[in-house]
Amino acid sequence: MARIRVHNMLVTLDGYATGEDQSLSAAFGHAHKQFMHWFGAIGLWRGIQADGPMTVDEAIVNQWGQGIGAEIMGRNKFKPSSGPWDPDDEWRGWWGEDPPFHTPCFVLTHYPHPPLQMEGGTTFHFLDASPAEAAEVAMRAADGLDVRIGGGPTTVREFLAADLIDHLHVVVVPIVIGRGVALWDGLEGVQDRFDVETVSTPSGVAHVTFTRKPRS
Amino acid sequence: MARIRVHNMLVTLDGYATGEDQSLSAAFGHAHKQFMHWFGAIGLWRGIQADGPMTVDEAIVNQWGQGIGAEIMGRNKFKPSSGPWDPDDEWRGWWGEDPPFHTPCFVLTHYPHPPLQMEGGTTFHFLDASPAEAAEVAMRAADGLDVRIGGGPTTVREFLAADLIDHLHVVVVPIVIGRGVALWDGLEGVQDRFDVETVSTPSGVAHVTFTRKPRS
Repeated sequence: MARIRVHNMLVTLDGYATGEDQSLSAAFGHAHKQFMHWFGAIGLWRGIQADGPMTVDEAIVNQWGQGIGAEIMGRNKFKPSSGPWDPDDEWRGWWGEDPPFHTPCFVLTHYPHPPLQMEGGTTFHFLDASPAEAAEVAMRAADGLDVRIGGGPTTVREFLAADLIDHLHVVVVPIVIGRGVALWDGLEGVQDRFDVETVSTPSGVAHVTFTRKPRS
Repeated sequence: MARIRVHNMLVTLDGYATGEDQSLSAAFGHAHKQFMHWFGAIGLWRGIQADGPMTVDEAIVNQWGQGIGAEIMGRNKFKPSSGPWDPDDEWRGWWGEDPPFHTPCFVLTHYPHPPLQMEGGTTFHFLDASPAEAAEVAMRAADGLDVRIGGGPTTVREFLAADLIDHLHVVVVPIVIGRGVALWDGLEGVQDRFDVETVSTPSGVAHVTFTRKPRS
């Protein structure tokens, strides 16, 4: 049975998964520098390299790409902007011509946008759909593999609220940023649906994984 | 140089250190049951007992009583109530006639209340003072030992905001409670003043300790 998974969601001690005032120059807003620091500390986006360190952090964060057949992301992850898309907008995401996804990616937006065929197997499809509808579309596209909810936190929160998440991995980083997007808003008691495991690593973070209990 | 310390402050994933609607029957409000569960899971208030387990959790939580010469607590920790004290109120705290503090305890309140002499060395003094003033009074009473800020979270937050804390131990518990008293409000960037260490334990929590960097 294919699952819906979330990986590498950094959360501060005060519960924020990104800062305030996100922009094209600061994807994580006023806390951009701190988030980049902690992404680096846990080896995110580095991949396994010959002669490189192989840490528990990396083992955990590299689960991100394993067994995934499609991604769903919020519009704000694709581009921090709102309203109808400008037809002259040449933005093709943050990730260059060969994005690291290598699968279909469904960008949730209320406004139509033509699909973007990238290199390496990534295609961005733009979809106006509820979480349940998007999950269905992405599951079909994943063809038996798992679906990743790629963020941002608002999108993850909506899928959690709809009880569509089978596996959630958050990384508690020991910082207080004061404001931003709170991952847990409206999710009181969410832990009751999951088996929860916590492990700290020498980098100073705590990885907390939520695995959905069997549905009765 | 004597220090001001905080121990065993449970904080949820969404940043709350106690729930909403605290009362005499539910000291941690709507989340009382969950907090009690996690206090039990980490062995809080059990003490080292012959033939009992000796866990890393217990080693950490039992630092609470070591080297302490006085405590400061908020009025709400002593009794969840507000306004002037009723002279007929026979409340002498939650802890019976021999409270576990065994030192002078300074209860911060704007309203006068006669001191309460308990058994075992505990005396409750009631003090209308700023955090800095209370720290000075408690330091004198501690006579060379450390001072503990015993909570609740609002009191801890005020002492953190005034940069009066030398050591802070929080226990991140993997639950989401939705509402309550947020420990970190107004403390953006507080981590910059501290060396921070994180360690998870088999109970499922992550202990995060903040040790004040030397003041320049």
